[in-house]
Amino acid sequence: MSTIKNDLVLRAAQGLEVERTPIWLMRQAGRILPEYRALREKFPDFKTYIKTPEAVVEATLQPIKALGVDAAIIFSDILVIPEAMGLNYEMIEKKGPFFPKKIQTNADIDNLSIANPDESLLYVTQAISLTKKELNNSLPLIGFAGAPWTIFAYMTEGSGSKTFSTARKWLYCNPEYSHKLLDKITTSTILYLKSQIRAGADLVQIFDSWAGILPPSHYSEFSLKYIAKICDAITEVPITVFAKDAYFARAEMAKLNCQVIGLDWCMDIAESRTLIPNKTLQGNFDPCNLYASKEVIKKETEKMLESFGKSKHIANLGHGLYPDIEADKVKYFVDVVKNYQFN
Amino acid sequence: MSTIKNDLVLRAAQGLEVERTPIWLMRQAGRILPEYRALREKFPDFKTYIKTPEAVVEATLQPIKALGVDAAIIFSDILVIPEAMGLNYEMIEKKGPFFPKKIQTNADIDNLSIANPDESLLYVTQAISLTKKELNNSLPLIGFAGAPWTIFAYMTEGSGSKTFSTARKWLYCNPEYSHKLLDKITTSTILYLKSQIRAGADLVQIFDSWAGILPPSHYSEFSLKYIAKICDAITEVPITVFAKDAYFARAEMAKLNCQVIGLDWCMDIAESRTLIPNKTLQGNFDPCNLYASKEVIKKETEKMLESFGKSKHIANLGHGLYPDIEADKVKYFVDVVKNYQFN
Repeated sequence: MSTIKNDLVLRAAQGLEVERTPIWLMRQAGRILPEYRALREKFPDFKTYIKTPEAVVEATLQPIKALGVDAAIIFSDILVIPEAMGLNYEMIEKKGPFFPKKIQTNADIDNLSIANPDESLLYVTQAISLTKKELNNSLPLIGFAGAPWTIFAYMTEGSGSKTFSTARKWLYCNPEYSHKLLDKITTSTILYLKSQIRAGADLVQIFDSWAGILPPSHYSEFSLKYIAKICDAITEVPITVFAKDAYFARAEMAKLNCQVIGLDWCMDIAESRTLIPNKTLQGNFDPCNLYASKEVIKKETEKMLESFGKSKHIANLGHGLYPDIEADKVKYFVDVVKNYQFN
Repeated sequence: MSTIKNDLVLRAAQGLEVERTPIWLMRQAGRILPEYRALREKFPDFKTYIKTPEAVVEATLQPIKALGVDAAIIFSDILVIPEAMGLNYEMIEKKGPFFPKKIQTNADIDNLSIANPDESLLYVTQAISLTKKELNNSLPLIGFAGAPWTIFAYMTEGSGSKTFSTARKWLYCNPEYSHKLLDKITTSTILYLKSQIRAGADLVQIFDSWAGILPPSHYSEFSLKYIAKICDAITEVPITVFAKDAYFARAEMAKLNCQVIGLDWCMDIAESRTLIPNKTLQGNFDPCNLYASKEVIKKETEKMLESFGKSKHIANLGHGLYPDIEADKVKYFVDVVKNYQFN
């Protein structure tokens, strides 16, 4: 079906037969790799880095060589969308994102534009085109975006937060304008993902990092509704939806027009198969397990593989890699998955 | 059964009949009340504050008058336990707890003592005795402690964290000493809760704030096991266990020797009743809902009350109050609960 040499991830995403379980890792590119840290020294500012396509290509390809994963994922950041809508942000080292002027009023929302990826996000699509050229059809390339609710949370909170109570206050106090903002983010995100696909992305993933702080009724109304719109609009390539901690929404997520659902490490695998019987599942190794000995890593990895079974599974972590995890252990984890023989 | 005039919380905890649903609120004492903020100006340092029994009594009693809740909870901090074991901490305003010397080696664990509450935690038990005198049997007084895993998480991480990956690394890399530390914390906590009960606490609550970051198997092994030990040891008064985000452990929690299980706002009420059929449930109003209009608060509160039903429910939030929630809205929420008539 595809001209990509190793298309295991794409076949697994479609629920087709695979010779072995494919694997890639959230945050596979980045701080766990010494070669990335060396590269970053040339670009001390993260945002300058992600706006330099040649540097992005290098970071995107590093884990292919270093870890032997079955897919590349474009190195970028979910908050490029608010910026493309007119809300600038800074990435503060060791602290995270910060919006000097966060969304505080209805007028702030009215003043936001719909992102025009062909203008303001060209640096991403250029990096995708260049990466595709470098990959030369050896592996699929994954594009991504944040889920509208997660983007909304950062835009209204203005930074990371333990509670995101300022963001959540909007939903209770001003649902009308919350929906207006979510609509604008959704429209922007669809345009953005479509531009990534035109540039060559073979699969796209939607990250709903702050899914788990919403009560179930709010999650349906203010998050899943918009994820569903994105899934309905993207028909060109398979879509993965990863909503961290949204255990309560799994049955509803089974109805999304997407091919893959990501699980975090708290979600029981068998229970998730029952709740989401029709889709491929991705995940869900605890990233902290990679701090353990190789013996423990092997045992736990094989347990995970058996629980998911051979088909309809893309091996991954239940969250991104933490920066202090040793690359050698990560490579070992990847190898265990790739060498595992199902009976 | 009790000489306390308003013993609704205690009767509900025991599953006995009540005339109406009782209510108290996590973090009901503290920054939401202007009278508390005024009081704190005299004690800019939080730790000096909680070590001054007369000031603690005042903070503990303020919400009784201001909000009309059905129970007082002693104003204190879960991290007094590590300190009583020999690990000092600082409370940094707007940032949270910080341990200048966190637990990093086996020797650090060997060097910790078992807390002796009659020496190092007298300031808490004295505050409890004084509060009891002031309450004069009008309302029950709740004592509390952190769950061993949550205390362990702070002691090994050294501060709050988004991932607690340093704390969780211990469980994978050094389970033997992790258990040693958890054992010491558990023994200390049992002694501490018993001293609170001797001083007059009528019910005790165990807070497992960081329950939800452990995979289910780790949660059983490194958290629930120790909570069970505490529940087995405390036979004098009812116990409430609140394990935030540990949705996956609800069926197992039904087996604890405790009377009440707290729910956060993501946990479905009907599903939780099915998983924990034998116990009283506490919770689970979304604290962010208190930012909404009174109309919305009333509607949502009544929906919650109907979902729990009249018996075996102690109304509360699904997490602590946030400092910027208006006291007037909180009082309104309490009143809606107290005035609700079940058909």
